[in-house]
Amino acid sequence: MKKVNLKDKFQLFDAYWTPKILGEANNSHVKIFKAKGEFVWHSHKDEDEFFLVVKGQLNIKMRDQEIHLKEGEFFIVPKGVEHLPYANEEAYVLLFEPKAVINTGNTISEKAVEDPEWI
Amino acid sequence: MKKVNLKDKFQLFDAYWTPKILGEANNSHVKIFKAKGEFVWHSHKDEDEFFLVVKGQLNIKMRDQEIHLKEGEFFIVPKGVEHLPYANEEAYVLLFEPKAVINTGNTISEKAVEDPEWI
Repeated sequence: MKKVNLKDKFQLFDAYWTPKILGEANNSHVKIFKAKGEFVWHSHKDEDEFFLVVKGQLNIKMRDQEIHLKEGEFFIVPKGVEHLPYANEEAYVLLFEPKAVINTGNTISEKAVEDPEWI
Repeated sequence: MKKVNLKDKFQLFDAYWTPKILGEANNSHVKIFKAKGEFVWHSHKDEDEFFLVVKGQLNIKMRDQEIHLKEGEFFIVPKGVEHLPYANEEAYVLLFEPKAVINTGNTISEKAVEDPEWI
């Protein structure tokens, strides 16, 4: 049982849209990722997804609205809701979601990370 | 579905050790609380508890170690582990934990909040 410093962890990798696992609680994972550019449209059939911006701005397009998250703001994408995250400039994001979640959800994509690394 | 700004939410209440609910995802609640002084020794039999410090410093005493969390640092108290959170100065904390959790866990205390308020 150790504490985790988010800034330190973000220094350990560079690639965008590659979630890293920092912790586990109640069958969910605490993850972080770096965002820049556009991800892919996808949804998660059974899992809500919690996004908290730690640095920069993350945008989340949905079919009926678009959310702009700045540092210190969070949004929960409900299960089944199609979404497309994107960031014009580099952003750092904390995720909290069930362990089973794959980043690209129902979408087949080269951006899929099926077995995220613990850091 | 709206985004949530953490700083704005912390302005809505003053009392220490009174968790407020900001969101729900996968049968867990996103909560915040303000810490100052000492809480009570307690544990949660079935739930891990995720603490992320948003402002200030939160300390968590356990029987075999003590954790000092600064802004941007988190710690997960595993289920069943006795802990005593305290803060020398006011601190703002984000919690992520199953909906069933009561703040004082197994401990009978006037600090128990059995039905936290949504804000």
